Amino acid sequence: MEVTNRYVVMRNHIDGTPQESDFELKTEALSLSIEPGKKELIVKNLYLSIDPYQLNRMKQKSSSQETTSFARAVKPSEAIDAYGVARVVASGIPAFKEDDLVAGLLTWGEYSIVKEGGLLNKVDNIGFPISHHVGVLAFSGLTAYAGFFEICKPKKGEKVFVSAASGSVGSLVGQYAKLFGCYVVGCASSQKKVDLLKQKLGFDEAFNYKEETDLKSTLKRYFPDGIDIYFDNVGAEMLEAAVENMNTFGRVAVCGVISEYTDKGRRAAPNMVDVIYKRITMQGFLAGDHMKVYKDFISDTVEHIQAGKLQVLEDISHGLESIPSAFVGLFRGDNIGKKMVQLADD
Amino acid sequence: MEVTNRYVVMRNHIDGTPQESDFELKTEALSLSIEPGKKELIVKNLYLSIDPYQLNRMKQKSSSQETTSFARAVKPSEAIDAYGVARVVASGIPAFKEDDLVAGLLTWGEYSIVKEGGLLNKVDNIGFPISHHVGVLAFSGLTAYAGFFEICKPKKGEKVFVSAASGSVGSLVGQYAKLFGCYVVGCASSQKKVDLLKQKLGFDEAFNYKEETDLKSTLKRYFPDGIDIYFDNVGAEMLEAAVENMNTFGRVAVCGVISEYTDKGRRAAPNMVDVIYKRITMQGFLAGDHMKVYKDFISDTVEHIQAGKLQVLEDISHGLESIPSAFVGLFRGDNIGKKMVQLADD
Repeated sequence: MEVTNRYVVMRNHIDGTPQESDFELKTEALSLSIEPGKKELIVKNLYLSIDPYQLNRMKQKSSSQETTSFARAVKPSEAIDAYGVARVVASGIPAFKEDDLVAGLLTWGEYSIVKEGGLLNKVDNIGFPISHHVGVLAFSGLTAYAGFFEICKPKKGEKVFVSAASGSVGSLVGQYAKLFGCYVVGCASSQKKVDLLKQKLGFDEAFNYKEETDLKSTLKRYFPDGIDIYFDNVGAEMLEAAVENMNTFGRVAVCGVISEYTDKGRRAAPNMVDVIYKRITMQGFLAGDHMKVYKDFISDTVEHIQAGKLQVLEDISHGLESIPSAFVGLFRGDNIGKKMVQLADD
Repeated sequence: MEVTNRYVVMRNHIDGTPQESDFELKTEALSLSIEPGKKELIVKNLYLSIDPYQLNRMKQKSSSQETTSFARAVKPSEAIDAYGVARVVASGIPAFKEDDLVAGLLTWGEYSIVKEGGLLNKVDNIGFPISHHVGVLAFSGLTAYAGFFEICKPKKGEKVFVSAASGSVGSLVGQYAKLFGCYVVGCASSQKKVDLLKQKLGFDEAFNYKEETDLKSTLKRYFPDGIDIYFDNVGAEMLEAAVENMNTFGRVAVCGVISEYTDKGRRAAPNMVDVIYKRITMQGFLAGDHMKVYKDFISDTVEHIQAGKLQVLEDISHGLESIPSAFVGLFRGDNIGKKMVQLADD
């Protein structure tokens, strides 16, 4: 059987704020059968993850390229790989069979071909919506969990600040921190998000950073006794303001710097004298380095969701053609929670 | 017996590059006897430590003030406290007696009065010059030792970069790193210092940063396989260049940022995308938090010195009146090794 597979490509490298016109849809004829002896899978994509970090891979050149698969360069006109959940349509690999539900590195397309050795695992469907396997039970969740527990090394009662707090990772970090027994303040880009953080996610406080003129004073107001942990998703002035307001032995988990991704001249310049005198640690991390906590992450997270203690925020667009606008919208702060695109019904 | 005690004070707070004219000498009559019942010591200062960090305490206001005794504000016209070695002249504290050699927090003066509870310890003179108890066997040494072993967590064979490498701390970090089995490159501000690093201290390579126009390329040249550890004493562009050239899981010990002390607008703005993708840790620290390695520090250091494997660089000026120029000279890079002022013979 042959189908027409549609997929999204980048026209050229992107060095500033991405536009929908930076992308185009391509089509190709795809046979849904595998040649005998070929060790690969053909999968039909159900949900695809839309993540800010992908912009870094779309740039002309990054000094960090090739240091991790997360940073591997995307080439114009080629299929763009992305995390997602799919259904196996045809398998040339004994470990997988038709109709298996799989999660891992796919492409921004309706179908993906995954070679043997590709980063794909069978999904153990434990009664949650399939979309959960793209976000809260996948890398967004692990990033939040490992970042908070392994990098921030929290103690009960500590004061935690989370930026981009209504995003895929931030919304979980704040909730893990509350469940653990910390005082948590988040910032976001609209009053609607602020209300959600306080009313639905249980943050102690939240503020709309766009309404603030002096972030250092803002944080001083929300943390009169200082910040112990800053989970940074945005970089730039927010990081500087957080360092200024940190307590001794404060920790910064450097998870993302979305405010810098679209502007290569934009940088955080934290006061390093503060970093010394307050013995602050700033640590960059990637979830993939923390697979040793994977089991704990899954069991804790499943338990919290089942108990109704962890709210899962998903922001789902529909159809392949919505991928460019979904991606572009990340940098305008359009999404609330994990952004993904659904391509087909389960 | 009464003497005339001379001491150095600051005329006003100092917010830029310090000048000798920012200081003045004061004199006071001092009785060298202690009133009965008064729990204090009068000591005659022999060597006083001259350290860049003291400039931060002389500023109008630092957000880090009061977070540590190192950051306590100095007030104009008052005696400036500083680490040093002294001889007890009169004691009202049973644990000390006349002629004891003591080290700890003194003042930039010919005599100091130390109240009970002051940070003073008896020096166990183990056959080294007394000046060693101001630098290599005191906080400069502990800073280098704890910073390198506890913060940088080195592995044999790793590539280490040290800035201000001919300074009191840098010169020791580089040597500890060599003795431990690392590859070590240092930078300094003159050819004379560079020669010393390579010929006397055994650094693998060294360069004069003032002759370089693009520090990122310079470090790429000296570290074609990347930097694993950066021991930062200077901040600003050097920190940025080091982060750009770091390997995955690189560590930055943030020990000092002398290039920023004299210019509050000057800041390092390291690329945080690199920090994430390369999982870099940047950690500020103070030696005083690492007293648990003190015994190891002393025994290792003494052993290395006695074996002729660790060179001790001391840069000694003479007489109280030389304190302002000694201090001001730190920010011009005048000193080679530990800067101190000798006030009296042993």
